[in-house]
Amino acid sequence: MEGNVIVGQSGGPTSVINASLAGVFKTAKDRGAKNVYGMMHGIKGLIDGQYVRLEDKIRSDLDIDLLKRTPSSFLGSCRFKLPEIRENEDLYKKIFKRLTDLDVKYFFYIGGNDSMDTIKKLSDYGIFINSDIRFIGVPKTIDNDLAVTDHTPGYGSAAKFIASTMKEIIRDGLVYDYPTISIVEIMGRNAGWLTAAAALAKGEDCEGVDLIYLPEKTFDIDHFMERIHDLTSQNRSLVIALSEGIKVADGRYVFELADHVEMVDAFGHKLLSGSAKFLADKIAAEYGIRTRSIEFSTLQRCAAHMASRVDITEAFNVGGSAVKEAFGGETGKVIVLKRISDDPYMCITEACDVHKIANIEKKVPADWITDDDYVTQDMINYIHPLIQQELPPMMVDGLPRHLNLSRCPQD
Amino acid sequence: MEGNVIVGQSGGPTSVINASLAGVFKTAKDRGAKNVYGMMHGIKGLIDGQYVRLEDKIRSDLDIDLLKRTPSSFLGSCRFKLPEIRENEDLYKKIFKRLTDLDVKYFFYIGGNDSMDTIKKLSDYGIFINSDIRFIGVPKTIDNDLAVTDHTPGYGSAAKFIASTMKEIIRDGLVYDYPTISIVEIMGRNAGWLTAAAALAKGEDCEGVDLIYLPEKTFDIDHFMERIHDLTSQNRSLVIALSEGIKVADGRYVFELADHVEMVDAFGHKLLSGSAKFLADKIAAEYGIRTRSIEFSTLQRCAAHMASRVDITEAFNVGGSAVKEAFGGETGKVIVLKRISDDPYMCITEACDVHKIANIEKKVPADWITDDDYVTQDMINYIHPLIQQELPPMMVDGLPRHLNLSRCPQD
Repeated sequence: MEGNVIVGQSGGPTSVINASLAGVFKTAKDRGAKNVYGMMHGIKGLIDGQYVRLEDKIRSDLDIDLLKRTPSSFLGSCRFKLPEIRENEDLYKKIFKRLTDLDVKYFFYIGGNDSMDTIKKLSDYGIFINSDIRFIGVPKTIDNDLAVTDHTPGYGSAAKFIASTMKEIIRDGLVYDYPTISIVEIMGRNAGWLTAAAALAKGEDCEGVDLIYLPEKTFDIDHFMERIHDLTSQNRSLVIALSEGIKVADGRYVFELADHVEMVDAFGHKLLSGSAKFLADKIAAEYGIRTRSIEFSTLQRCAAHMASRVDITEAFNVGGSAVKEAFGGETGKVIVLKRISDDPYMCITEACDVHKIANIEKKVPADWITDDDYVTQDMINYIHPLIQQELPPMMVDGLPRHLNLSRCPQD
Repeated sequence: MEGNVIVGQSGGPTSVINASLAGVFKTAKDRGAKNVYGMMHGIKGLIDGQYVRLEDKIRSDLDIDLLKRTPSSFLGSCRFKLPEIRENEDLYKKIFKRLTDLDVKYFFYIGGNDSMDTIKKLSDYGIFINSDIRFIGVPKTIDNDLAVTDHTPGYGSAAKFIASTMKEIIRDGLVYDYPTISIVEIMGRNAGWLTAAAALAKGEDCEGVDLIYLPEKTFDIDHFMERIHDLTSQNRSLVIALSEGIKVADGRYVFELADHVEMVDAFGHKLLSGSAKFLADKIAAEYGIRTRSIEFSTLQRCAAHMASRVDITEAFNVGGSAVKEAFGGETGKVIVLKRISDDPYMCITEACDVHKIANIEKKVPADWITDDDYVTQDMINYIHPLIQQELPPMMVDGLPRHLNLSRCPQD
């Protein structure tokens, strides 16, 4: 195998982004890669000269299996979008110099939309300067909002956590003999994929959630309050799932209707949480019903202890496929998942031109959302195979064991 | 076995309150109980004549094992404190009439402080009227604030969830190469037992949380801001655990320092959440550091999928011991846990006079809290055995299976 491999992780972590790293590492080593380097903190770290030799950090099959079970980005992450080539060609020259110095011929980047944009720009620049370095993107995001791919690694595990925990919240929410309302706020700024996973809680042993609100559909507060009134007048307790991104007709987020609200968080992102609390307070004030709001918050993207094995396997496989494509000579591609069959569920990997996928946001189809504030069976059938099976944590001394880069042996 | 058995659940649910129910049911049946009734929605349901025959609902060993893994109160719950006997003796007469009509000789009540008060009053009244019905309390609470008992069933599982999830949040929180601060708010109005469990996250593979704040110690905001400044000036990212109940020197809760705050939730309880958010916003505003606040919320009391097997076993055993004591003629007792040894961990059950335990709140000892905003090794040694081992959920179709009273077969 001529040349070395480098791999980085970028964007918000997921429960299985390290399974993709394991897939890149193991497949590259199995196919004869000499050195596999890891960029620390993604492309930003590489620019600054921060990298490790992964053979020194991932030393055994046990380490690989721990890595698959470790949430968040083993190599660290960054939120850094490359400038256009014409705006700062020097930066591109610097990156390619780093790669050449390390004799890197294969470059893999695991991330979401911004990361695929990085692959697009680096592979474009590589073609422009006639470089022989191959650039392949490995998708991840709990949000499931990447185009072309049937779904995104990371989504299935987040969906499994949401559905599992929702079942527990429903059990907790229905214990009293008077109406109570639990409103659970779920991540997803513009796409309702994660919130829709709450529908999976319903089954033989569970009443399920009563109402589901996705950001793809305008949220009508009057209609919402009427439905609450109707349902609770039957003395029912309710559990409601809603996306943090729901908006009313004039385009405002629901939480923006509160009197006092900060609009920007400390990261400069528009603050999107608080809609559940706003609605819970409104119901309590107007109807005198006992309410509570729950935010799944960070847990939905890092609860590796409830990861889906289907998701972990697919995350590993897209990493492995990326290596195969690159070693086969491809560049400027992203590995996508193509569903061959729903029942039995079968999904294969394919390489897709990065220009077709970068910077496009995939939303829930309108016809998967029902008029009675729920989702269709098609939506449920789509998610159902993605949450199947488990890869339980290796429990050491009562807690899930992880692989931690800063605690790996030093040479 | 002369007479029947009745059992109820009360107060806020936990992950293992149903394991105690399983312990009462199975032990009573094994020892020849004819009928085991379940009060629905605790003593309040019994007063209204709501009960079920548990033999019709828990039909197999599989059901018993599912029950052990089902969070929340299988029989429903209530928040209902019996009046003093002299204030409403008619109510006591009504309860004893219900029990006599069902030929109940053994009454078990699983719950926290209010429930132990119920046992106290009913057993006192039983003695007063010379009844032969035995009343035994079975403790549960995630808050671990009951007196006499070494710890409370429910606490170990909540502590395991907190420590496990904290490890995942720490992995997620340390991915960037600039300082970020994650502040996690944990339940516990007056006692810091749950928050202290965050200390268990630290280990071979985990940096642990940096600071821990319990309600037993006055919270000094100036000191806190100084510590944040010192630690982050070393370019460190931090993860901080704090109790919802922390108060400043003048007695106000930290969240009460915010400009706008509702003081009472829809249940009429003083709203105790928001301190993490308040401090995160303050750090962001004053230091320009990227912060986020996370509330574990309801999950810490219902995440049965991460229950401690030690806790489940002990919850079952206190239920079983309650039956043995009652069948042996005891009344007016609460089953408590007595730790015989830390290493190896050994814990036995004992029967304690209910008058010694009801309405007393147990707090974290002051000498288990350090001056540098952490807890001592003694505190860690106390919790450590309680989170050990697992009883993983039975996964059906990708999700944890529960036993649901309203979905049990009808006769």
